[in-house]
Amino acid sequence: MNQATALAHPNIALVKYWGKRTGKTNIPATPSLSITLDTLVTRTSVRESERDQIEIDGKVVSDEKIEDFLVQLRAAYSLPPLSIESSNNFPTSAGLASSASGFAGLLTAIDTAFNLEMSVSERSIWARKGSGSAARSIFGGFASLDGESGDWCARGVLPARAWPLKVVIAVTSEKTKDVGSTQGMKRSKQTSPYYSAWTESTKSDHAAGLSAISQQDFSRLASIAESSCLKMHALMLSSQPPLFYWNGATVETIATVRELQSAGVSVFFTVDAGPQVKAVCQEDAADIVAERLANVPGVLKTLVCGLGPGAYVDQPR
Amino acid sequence: MNQATALAHPNIALVKYWGKRTGKTNIPATPSLSITLDTLVTRTSVRESERDQIEIDGKVVSDEKIEDFLVQLRAAYSLPPLSIESSNNFPTSAGLASSASGFAGLLTAIDTAFNLEMSVSERSIWARKGSGSAARSIFGGFASLDGESGDWCARGVLPARAWPLKVVIAVTSEKTKDVGSTQGMKRSKQTSPYYSAWTESTKSDHAAGLSAISQQDFSRLASIAESSCLKMHALMLSSQPPLFYWNGATVETIATVRELQSAGVSVFFTVDAGPQVKAVCQEDAADIVAERLANVPGVLKTLVCGLGPGAYVDQPR
Repeated sequence: MNQATALAHPNIALVKYWGKRTGKTNIPATPSLSITLDTLVTRTSVRESERDQIEIDGKVVSDEKIEDFLVQLRAAYSLPPLSIESSNNFPTSAGLASSASGFAGLLTAIDTAFNLEMSVSERSIWARKGSGSAARSIFGGFASLDGESGDWCARGVLPARAWPLKVVIAVTSEKTKDVGSTQGMKRSKQTSPYYSAWTESTKSDHAAGLSAISQQDFSRLASIAESSCLKMHALMLSSQPPLFYWNGATVETIATVRELQSAGVSVFFTVDAGPQVKAVCQEDAADIVAERLANVPGVLKTLVCGLGPGAYVDQPR
Repeated sequence: MNQATALAHPNIALVKYWGKRTGKTNIPATPSLSITLDTLVTRTSVRESERDQIEIDGKVVSDEKIEDFLVQLRAAYSLPPLSIESSNNFPTSAGLASSASGFAGLLTAIDTAFNLEMSVSERSIWARKGSGSAARSIFGGFASLDGESGDWCARGVLPARAWPLKVVIAVTSEKTKDVGSTQGMKRSKQTSPYYSAWTESTKSDHAAGLSAISQQDFSRLASIAESSCLKMHALMLSSQPPLFYWNGATVETIATVRELQSAGVSVFFTVDAGPQVKAVCQEDAADIVAERLANVPGVLKTLVCGLGPGAYVDQPR
């Protein structure tokens, strides 16, 4: 009946992705490593229609990234005009990876609705063409996006149940960010004197991160992830004009995570292209972390997530 | 009578200095450019004594940097045991360049008290051996610290009266910083993947900054100074363990300076190894800048400075 609904969760990179190779298909300059969340979810329905129409969070929009993506997909597959409806249960374009869950869900819904019969790797490759980090949201738990298989697609490296970490998200602003990731990555590549050192050091962080995950070594993963996060924000700050994604509450929340660490709590921070702080912690530390972060001045709210599944099709009830 | 009192002012680097060459005499890895302030002042008295004694802000202290400095100085000059009394009218070791004004004043007082008859360049070289940035506080107005003269010493590049800028300092914390500059610089050099790109790019910033000052081109100087500041903090964040000198109010104050810029106010920010924001502005913008920064949540107080003179001897009254 040429329609389907998919659900997909955002993912948070522990070894960050910031910078693309030259070209149009979103090939990252470096490998990356992530965890896919539960709780936050994007629900995307597609159906055949008279003309393309995109509705996000209840509003009809013109979205260049989605339109470009459909052009690419139609060059490979025969697809009719589409009506797309996508909604998030969390703030969109605010550093909570809505484009990752958005494109992972969109591709999964299209694949199902029009019987494209893609393999999971093919879905990851296609999701990546929409948004680099979307490749990882095809998978649950811990995922790696790298070029190991020849083409750049993600793969699952550890399922969520094997190491059920928690993530406390401290939301410090719900505003849409000033500079989107695609534009920001381009700026960093073109203007930061630190760009080549960033891409070099990320390769070894990725290898070290994979090893820490396979050994479930929390403190090593903490150190690799915080370093990768700070090097990425350093790269952003050294771009011209500089990319400022932090606000005051971001910095105070990081300081609070560092205090918790000093007190022996198993937690580390990571921050993406936005002002929200994600505090990754061992299961038994989640309550104290959530309570402390909720009390940081400037934190609007906290969201507590576990690790979630990859993108999947909603079964008709 | 073998005693003297000198006054010296801290200076704020517009093209930053972070990183030393190998060795013991504080040779910077890169050239730097600064403005010497008025208003903030360190008053340092030295006199012959029975044994070395150091008193800072009314407290007898044991200060390794000063002790090492006296050892070096005595290897070149015959000096008796000294009583040193130094006091600041501003917070010490909190990112307000108290070691710059401290060593510039100490050296100037010793030179006078014991008739060492140093040239101004020799005083700058000796001050540098105590604290790298102290070399610049020997001079007023705009100063450059570089290796152009063969030895690394500062030189005046434009007197204060030629371009009387104002500096509004937003004090966001009066705590002593966790990691001092000497230690921090060593850590960045040893651990940051961005260190060599930092030293390379600072050389061209220094040349561009000198040219902007000679042309009194405020907006060019603003862009060079902000970029140098952010690249230095990016270097600090990318060190291991990371060097965090910002707090939440630091970030909110920078955001306020950027809002003022968008509204056409002639102001730019710079931040040193500490959480204070220095807003450098054209004379006629000082009032609005001071008012706006005083109202940023987390700003404890603002200090308004003009550009001041180099270190000088207090004449007996």
